[in-house]
Amino acid sequence: MAEDGPAREPARRPGGRTARVRRRILEAAAELIARDGIGGLRYDQVAELAEVNKTSVYRNWPDRTTLVADALAEFGATAAPLHDSGDLDADLVDYLEALAAATASPQGRAMLTVVASARENPELRAVVDEVYDRRLATLRERLQTAVERGELPETDLSFLGEMLTGPVQLFVSRGARTFTRADAHQVSAIVLAGVRATR
Amino acid sequence: MAEDGPAREPARRPGGRTARVRRRILEAAAELIARDGIGGLRYDQVAELAEVNKTSVYRNWPDRTTLVADALAEFGATAAPLHDSGDLDADLVDYLEALAAATASPQGRAMLTVVASARENPELRAVVDEVYDRRLATLRERLQTAVERGELPETDLSFLGEMLTGPVQLFVSRGARTFTRADAHQVSAIVLAGVRATR
Repeated sequence: MAEDGPAREPARRPGGRTARVRRRILEAAAELIARDGIGGLRYDQVAELAEVNKTSVYRNWPDRTTLVADALAEFGATAAPLHDSGDLDADLVDYLEALAAATASPQGRAMLTVVASARENPELRAVVDEVYDRRLATLRERLQTAVERGELPETDLSFLGEMLTGPVQLFVSRGARTFTRADAHQVSAIVLAGVRATR
Repeated sequence: MAEDGPAREPARRPGGRTARVRRRILEAAAELIARDGIGGLRYDQVAELAEVNKTSVYRNWPDRTTLVADALAEFGATAAPLHDSGDLDADLVDYLEALAAATASPQGRAMLTVVASARENPELRAVVDEVYDRRLATLRERLQTAVERGELPETDLSFLGEMLTGPVQLFVSRGARTFTRADAHQVSAIVLAGVRATR
């Protein structure tokens, strides 16, 4: 939510009623996109699922693309945190496990649907790129710290990020079975050992 | 196409007119799914793009799900061949490069769209599973040969398959840049070195 100065008015503070309504609407939108696709998204259903008045949706998102974009941006910003505990492998395992859970959530599935259909829509394409770019930037930053500490050799860290997250996304989008913490361990161990052995 | 005995009638032989028409229809369907999604697939547009009579489409695929399923099954069966030249790394590089090109093709993009939206449709879900299962079985078979030759340690070969193909699928579905042969080399090198170092 855009903040326009110190939050003096209780209803506008982050975490206040306005923010809660906004979050409920975006979560409802993501859930419905996951179920029906972008083409099937209906404002009256968003309002019903979010338990808000339809005008609350129309007022804040006069066009559908902005609603889809904001639903995904919200997801991208909060999906999976990446910590720096000093133990790279442990941090990556936590991260990949959280990423798998987020990708399997209604918002995550909506994201996969949008990725698949965004090629023809420049505005959605830009949102998808931004969500992925932010995710990759977070990973790159943590990996860069590891390089500086001598835990990893110098390498293409964006590529390394794709090597770590690609298997997670494939697992979840297939949906054949749940991506477990043991899987996260194995992905992290193989990729880290591989990049150390090949550099 | 199902073969029902020796091909005495020229028009029914594989590669004959019937097979060509079938292939054109399935390719047109995949292209339109990639463009408009499953919900937007229209038989008259399939016929127009395939340059066939609309009745040719209706007669062979009375319902839409079967048409979608066959379009994807055709893609899955022919997408990326995996050879055994005796050099595992070279074979994997060829395979991953071909897989990236196939995934970026209209049929491949249609597949990604269907994967993202198949969760709610058991029939489509089954098709998607089969395409992935076949792909994974092909990979597993080649990797098993490498294990038997002592080129790879005993490990979960399905998981290894997901580690190899996951980054390719993520790259292509993002579409930020083309997945190159050098990328295929790097994925193969990191995963093979990683699995050798961790077992």
